[in-house]
Amino acid sequence: MPAPGPAVRAANLAAALRHVAACAEPPSRAGIAAATGFTRATASSLVDELVAAGLLAETAPLRRAGGGRPGTGLVLADRGAAGLGVEVNVDHVAACVVDLAGRVRHREVEGVDLRGVPPRRALARAARTARRAVAAAAGDGLEPSGAALALPGLVRGPSGPLQLAPNLGWRDVDVLELAGALEPFAGLALSAGNEADLAAVAELTERGPGASFLLVSGEVGIGAGVVVEGRLFRGAHGWAGELGHVSVDPAGPVCRCGARGCLERYAGQDALLASAGLVAPAGTSLGGVRTLDELVALAEAGDAGLLAGLDAAGHALGVAVSAALNLLDVPQVVLGGIYAPLSRWLAPGLCDELAVRLLAAPWAAPRVVASALGPEAAVVGAARTVVRSVVDDPAAWIARSTASSA
Amino acid sequence: MPAPGPAVRAANLAAALRHVAACAEPPSRAGIAAATGFTRATASSLVDELVAAGLLAETAPLRRAGGGRPGTGLVLADRGAAGLGVEVNVDHVAACVVDLAGRVRHREVEGVDLRGVPPRRALARAARTARRAVAAAAGDGLEPSGAALALPGLVRGPSGPLQLAPNLGWRDVDVLELAGALEPFAGLALSAGNEADLAAVAELTERGPGASFLLVSGEVGIGAGVVVEGRLFRGAHGWAGELGHVSVDPAGPVCRCGARGCLERYAGQDALLASAGLVAPAGTSLGGVRTLDELVALAEAGDAGLLAGLDAAGHALGVAVSAALNLLDVPQVVLGGIYAPLSRWLAPGLCDELAVRLLAAPWAAPRVVASALGPEAAVVGAARTVVRSVVDDPAAWIARSTASSA
Repeated sequence: MPAPGPAVRAANLAAALRHVAACAEPPSRAGIAAATGFTRATASSLVDELVAAGLLAETAPLRRAGGGRPGTGLVLADRGAAGLGVEVNVDHVAACVVDLAGRVRHREVEGVDLRGVPPRRALARAARTARRAVAAAAGDGLEPSGAALALPGLVRGPSGPLQLAPNLGWRDVDVLELAGALEPFAGLALSAGNEADLAAVAELTERGPGASFLLVSGEVGIGAGVVVEGRLFRGAHGWAGELGHVSVDPAGPVCRCGARGCLERYAGQDALLASAGLVAPAGTSLGGVRTLDELVALAEAGDAGLLAGLDAAGHALGVAVSAALNLLDVPQVVLGGIYAPLSRWLAPGLCDELAVRLLAAPWAAPRVVASALGPEAAVVGAARTVVRSVVDDPAAWIARSTASSA
Repeated sequence: MPAPGPAVRAANLAAALRHVAACAEPPSRAGIAAATGFTRATASSLVDELVAAGLLAETAPLRRAGGGRPGTGLVLADRGAAGLGVEVNVDHVAACVVDLAGRVRHREVEGVDLRGVPPRRALARAARTARRAVAAAAGDGLEPSGAALALPGLVRGPSGPLQLAPNLGWRDVDVLELAGALEPFAGLALSAGNEADLAAVAELTERGPGASFLLVSGEVGIGAGVVVEGRLFRGAHGWAGELGHVSVDPAGPVCRCGARGCLERYAGQDALLASAGLVAPAGTSLGGVRTLDELVALAEAGDAGLLAGLDAAGHALGVAVSAALNLLDVPQVVLGGIYAPLSRWLAPGLCDELAVRLLAAPWAAPRVVASALGPEAAVVGAARTVVRSVVDDPAAWIARSTASSA
């Protein structure tokens, strides 16, 4: 039999690697052969190549029920190829390195007010944070094979420009070109995406394949990621899910986008703080975990102003989320970003509005849950898109890494 | 070579029939073979079977560029298998028979106020209208192979119940069981769908494959069909697109659904008439073409009250459609139902709101156009889903029609 061509070999390598990634218990070479339909010899040869490339690792011999010779289990390598996610948001930057299995191995978050800061300077700041995460990961033998940027605005496709980030004041910025000139991004495969979309991708791992939900990401701005039957709904240009600019009251206060009465003016982080009578002191922000913890503590202590602010924000969210669910027909709302730890106080108002405004509520009562990942979701989702692309096409990764070490 | 199994034969019949359906000019047997990859002998045998079944017809010999023996052209039969669409809406019923090519061959519309009329009685009324369309079509040798019902509410899947039609006052109605007991539906394959979704399916034929748009269907209620890259977006249960219950003002007037400030209260047909100082006399309706024509004539004559009402409705539509486009990212709005002939007066207010409220407007200005089919779209779309299912699986249709004539 002739050796298969490179395209077939590439597809087979991907099938073997994806199978290992999907297994809850480390499979043996024989198990991979049985599950993928390859012969034992083909499966063994694919596994050998993936082990040699450092994408798979062998575990201690597996016990076998039949009592035969114990096989070696295979797992995704916890060293080598990794994914770097970087979030540039309005009041914080974050970076995260995940291994091939998508586990978070290092993460850095820094509160910093980027409103009005030019893109080049903001990206330099994010690159500094990313360098620290990459250096820490290098100590574990992890090396990013690419980086993905999570941004709070309209991003056109994975390689497209950022069209608009109203809260940063950015328009038509070629973020990938700017980032590509900076360490640690130089030389890496780079992509960009909307932060709520990437948070939804991360959340999908928690909700299970086939899940349908609206991930509402509360930050200074409010975004949403729409997932229907396990797939991110992107719309015609990749701009779907702009929940923050759905109108709550068309005669309401003017938003940074120029329209009146957008959800952000009622339930965005600044509106939430203001309606609670809280104002972040100049130069500080709520982006760091410390101050979000303080806000949660204040709510737990029963601060009347904050509780009233959270209730009002929950009702405003309910008006906009009802519009989204009437239009999109997804049965679950996941509260993400700063809303995750605040969901206990936001959910009642939100659920009240859904019960009245969602036409289908009597037949499929929507569930409202807190994100398992919270404000971390976007940067984790970004990092996971990088390792996902390695698992989906290991041959391309092997070719690149052979070329760069030659 | 052994004869192919029935599943392969069925797939091949469908491929041949779909190819003829997609051709602008009648293809020859040789042309079908070239386009589908079948041998000349296989293509000929498939065509012979489809001609014998009455699904394909032969045209006069085709002229050939090369000067060889002229071939016979093949077209979808304009007699025999047909699709019956039936619309039960709030103030009218309609029925339509299309031939295999989807051309409208007979159509009946009757204005009738069905608010509060029990489903059994309303369906009996629609069946009477459908019988007239079927009888007229029989005169052309057309016989429906199935019927599809277009309904103004939440329909669960093509065979599911109608969960809710707020303007009819119907809840949890098994419309297919009720309809199946009535002539001309008895014995036919029956399905049901949301009227705006079916209107969007019909509109897709006009907009071309791969189009992305929001079809806004204005009737007593307001629905929407979401089409992204040529595919109807249905959501998790088939309930997507409930634009009429998107909030325009959360403190606004109470809607029939129980919520406050729904779009229907500002731009539905009743609201439109009322805001123009017009009230339909008791027992009459706007559903018939005659009275819609009168409304258009009144607008053309510059009636100040009506023009103000249309302008207000356009702005209200703009608020809700902006929410939809911010969430769905589709670049085109098609005004359907009674909005189609009124689009000239609705579009300015709608476009003003989109320009301010749609975050992505500066990068992809949305187009607002009138539906080519107008109020006819839903019933035509319903009828076309029936013939589409014949073209997609002619073997099943042949088996059924052989069994019923045996």
